[in-house]
Amino acid sequence: MIPPKMASSTVSFIFIIITTVLLPSLSSQLSDLFPSNNPPPFLGKHSHPIKQPNNHQQYRYETRYFSQPLDHFSFLDLPRFRQRYLINTEHWVGPSRSGPIFLYCGNEGDIEWFAVNTGFVWEIAPRFGAMILFPEHRYYGDSIPFGSKEEAYRNATTLSYLTAEQALADFAVLITDLKTNLSAEGCPVVLFGGSYGGMLAAWMRLKYPHIAVGALASSAPILQFEDIVPPETFYNIVSNSFKRESSSCFDAIKNSWNALRSEGQKEDGLKQLSKTFHLCQELTSVQGLSDWLDSAYSYLAMVNYPYPSNFLMPLPGHPIREVCKKIDGSPAGSSILERIFNGVSVYYNYTGEVDCFQLDDDPHGMNGWNWQACTEMVMPMSSDQNTSMFPAYDWDYSAFREGCQKDFQVTPRPRWITTEFGGHDIEHVLKSFGSNIIFSNGLLDPWSGGSVLKNISETIIALITEEGAHHIDLRASSTEDPDWLVEQRATEIKLIQGWIDNYHKKMKATFEI
Amino acid sequence: MIPPKMASSTVSFIFIIITTVLLPSLSSQLSDLFPSNNPPPFLGKHSHPIKQPNNHQQYRYETRYFSQPLDHFSFLDLPRFRQRYLINTEHWVGPSRSGPIFLYCGNEGDIEWFAVNTGFVWEIAPRFGAMILFPEHRYYGDSIPFGSKEEAYRNATTLSYLTAEQALADFAVLITDLKTNLSAEGCPVVLFGGSYGGMLAAWMRLKYPHIAVGALASSAPILQFEDIVPPETFYNIVSNSFKRESSSCFDAIKNSWNALRSEGQKEDGLKQLSKTFHLCQELTSVQGLSDWLDSAYSYLAMVNYPYPSNFLMPLPGHPIREVCKKIDGSPAGSSILERIFNGVSVYYNYTGEVDCFQLDDDPHGMNGWNWQACTEMVMPMSSDQNTSMFPAYDWDYSAFREGCQKDFQVTPRPRWITTEFGGHDIEHVLKSFGSNIIFSNGLLDPWSGGSVLKNISETIIALITEEGAHHIDLRASSTEDPDWLVEQRATEIKLIQGWIDNYHKKMKATFEI
Repeated sequence: MIPPKMASSTVSFIFIIITTVLLPSLSSQLSDLFPSNNPPPFLGKHSHPIKQPNNHQQYRYETRYFSQPLDHFSFLDLPRFRQRYLINTEHWVGPSRSGPIFLYCGNEGDIEWFAVNTGFVWEIAPRFGAMILFPEHRYYGDSIPFGSKEEAYRNATTLSYLTAEQALADFAVLITDLKTNLSAEGCPVVLFGGSYGGMLAAWMRLKYPHIAVGALASSAPILQFEDIVPPETFYNIVSNSFKRESSSCFDAIKNSWNALRSEGQKEDGLKQLSKTFHLCQELTSVQGLSDWLDSAYSYLAMVNYPYPSNFLMPLPGHPIREVCKKIDGSPAGSSILERIFNGVSVYYNYTGEVDCFQLDDDPHGMNGWNWQACTEMVMPMSSDQNTSMFPAYDWDYSAFREGCQKDFQVTPRPRWITTEFGGHDIEHVLKSFGSNIIFSNGLLDPWSGGSVLKNISETIIALITEEGAHHIDLRASSTEDPDWLVEQRATEIKLIQGWIDNYHKKMKATFEI
Repeated sequence: MIPPKMASSTVSFIFIIITTVLLPSLSSQLSDLFPSNNPPPFLGKHSHPIKQPNNHQQYRYETRYFSQPLDHFSFLDLPRFRQRYLINTEHWVGPSRSGPIFLYCGNEGDIEWFAVNTGFVWEIAPRFGAMILFPEHRYYGDSIPFGSKEEAYRNATTLSYLTAEQALADFAVLITDLKTNLSAEGCPVVLFGGSYGGMLAAWMRLKYPHIAVGALASSAPILQFEDIVPPETFYNIVSNSFKRESSSCFDAIKNSWNALRSEGQKEDGLKQLSKTFHLCQELTSVQGLSDWLDSAYSYLAMVNYPYPSNFLMPLPGHPIREVCKKIDGSPAGSSILERIFNGVSVYYNYTGEVDCFQLDDDPHGMNGWNWQACTEMVMPMSSDQNTSMFPAYDWDYSAFREGCQKDFQVTPRPRWITTEFGGHDIEHVLKSFGSNIIFSNGLLDPWSGGSVLKNISETIIALITEEGAHHIDLRASSTEDPDWLVEQRATEIKLIQGWIDNYHKKMKATFEI
């Protein structure tokens, strides 16, 4: 999940990719930077992981497909679609011993990518004797309705079934069918998810308690809707992550937007900018570049892990520190934009293999998120003039809505998510309702601001780490893990064990009656 | 809610009513009585309440309309529809005092009819300072999509949005909007519902805990799905209600089906049967008559109240007792079918005003239930050869499905309700999940067999009355109320008061922090 940015341009990428025709007019019409408050998608564009060979012993899986209704909530006669899921049963102790089923709630991308980036589930499954399931989210990866991505993403009609509620129902129908086929009705299901997948895991536990006994919802900003948290939270956290490394770095970035704007207004300014930033194609507006920089900062804050990682991009440990080192330590006489380029190169070109940069590519196929952001996942975002290093802007729902109408011919339903899933006053609502959810968050993660950071009850628990970033707990363990991360994971394992033990206790009590 | 009967003929009534063309071929093709196991609709055909003048002081309401999306779970560009709701605010103490909102979950009929038959809500609202809301269920009464009932009920495409999930979302969206408009976000909502409306109330509390603080779900057979309860339960309870009054009455009914069948096979048999049963039109098959009799028995069991009532029909108190008196006490020499006619006349003609009987009318517009029964509300029904007074038959899902495909061009999803709302193993699932639901049931009610009859937790409570029938607790109090009913309602009031007090306590705690 990556935060929103400029609505029109971000949203239009989906069409760029689908039609493979660049629509520069959309960007060039924008009169200023960050004009319409669209937050960056959770996982998005501009992230380039090196294709990791899946050579981990514990990441072996079988790929299967399941036929799903396109619309679970109506009886329209629609074509079904094939949902892909990855399954591993080698450590599963089976139905006779009520072996648990660990289900990762696939989010907005290729499920194989999430599978290899969710080492935690693979590592702990053997000790639980658990089956591992990674069902893919509809409209992503290889789980595409209407036969092809081109057809599925053709227009608002074909995209209209790309919603969180439908995805949850997919998971529910799949697991129910699978359990029946395996005579595994008595096997407890534990949900996992990170980012939007974490939101799905939490919502699934709340909406389908009969299907799963608990959920680990990592970095799940289920409160980033309407006015539940202040809209400037996200960019404030990103900004603070830079400020805490270096205030001069923070200042350089804060000042760079004006420099960018001035440069862009010069004759040959766009050409010069394209050169400074080593772009493969010449810019047609400043917007695309601004967008590209904003993404880098936001994603850097999300993956600001204490050790080298390769989630969105190959990066060093403490990547923001490294970016700031480059910005602050650029050769004397470097212009502010040259400094900025040196800094973001840590993000976009850490391996040094990139000769020039494409602003609009989307290696993970994340563009469906733009549709989701324009329909139900409406997350208001502002940038505060004083506390943010980004250009100041206020959330402007009308402009956002117009962008969505223009780009997708769809009108958002900004209040629907909280109507369907709640969010307002969640502490009281869930105090005596619901159970067995872990909301884990690292405070470096800009999405933590929209997540649940306080215990709600004895069984709805917030696990907070000061130095954690975006769902770091779900990643594979490493010898470089700091103590707090080792402890966090141990607590999670203990809580999950508790859910399963309780489940078994209840079952046993029934048999004895 | 009235139990299912013969699928093809019952289901086909919807088309009969819509097209106003009788399709006797559907019935005449049926080779035996009860051939395809469709349970009687909760509230249905053959029930004729006298239009009650709404002259109760406490039943004053304003009628309003709210524009609803036709599909809450997709972003198809569909026409919105006007949902009717009844509202009374005269006793509401308003937002400043967090006055509660009592919301009755409209079920499969005209909401005004439910409003006047749910006296309990009207009677207790003043003492709670509560607003009263009766939103209508989509596709019923005056809440019809596509501009007209004819259009809405035209085919499977137009009917496809008639589902419980959509109805719950309607309630959620309506109440959220209303609370915003009234600045009443802090006002707790309490749900009420009887029969299918009770199912909706329970499900709504489970799925939308952020919207309502509790639910009184009266006679709500949320377990009448798949194999959760034995399929013969319903007709066994009906049968036992007759047997406990008189075993000779039970025997007469049990033997009447063969008599009916033999008579129908005679030359001029249908003519003779039409005469014996005072039908306005001559029968074209025995099926319609059998259906009409079955309905009477099932509905009699549901409204077997201890005092005269006028819910489905004007009836005396203990109506089954009266029916059996007629059957047992018919003049010497009466044929078995004449006895039966005398008996069911208590149901169909208690006031003595009917000259001849129409078999296929539907005074409450309940035919949408047939669509719901053919899509998600698939409630398996059998009739046990030994314990039931109805013709023996086994639940035959294949035949049921074929009937639905033929009549509606739709394929049921018999496992969907339990996938979406749970039901299996509900005691364990909800033991530490969910709160504040009352499942009230009278054991005379045939639907009680599919309801929750045991406490699940300290706050998910089963209230059982031995002598109660279908959601009798929701009816207006009367001087004839037996003590157990007075006590039951007092307990309900106390529990509801507890939910509201707890809510206020939590709110107060927040303000003080």
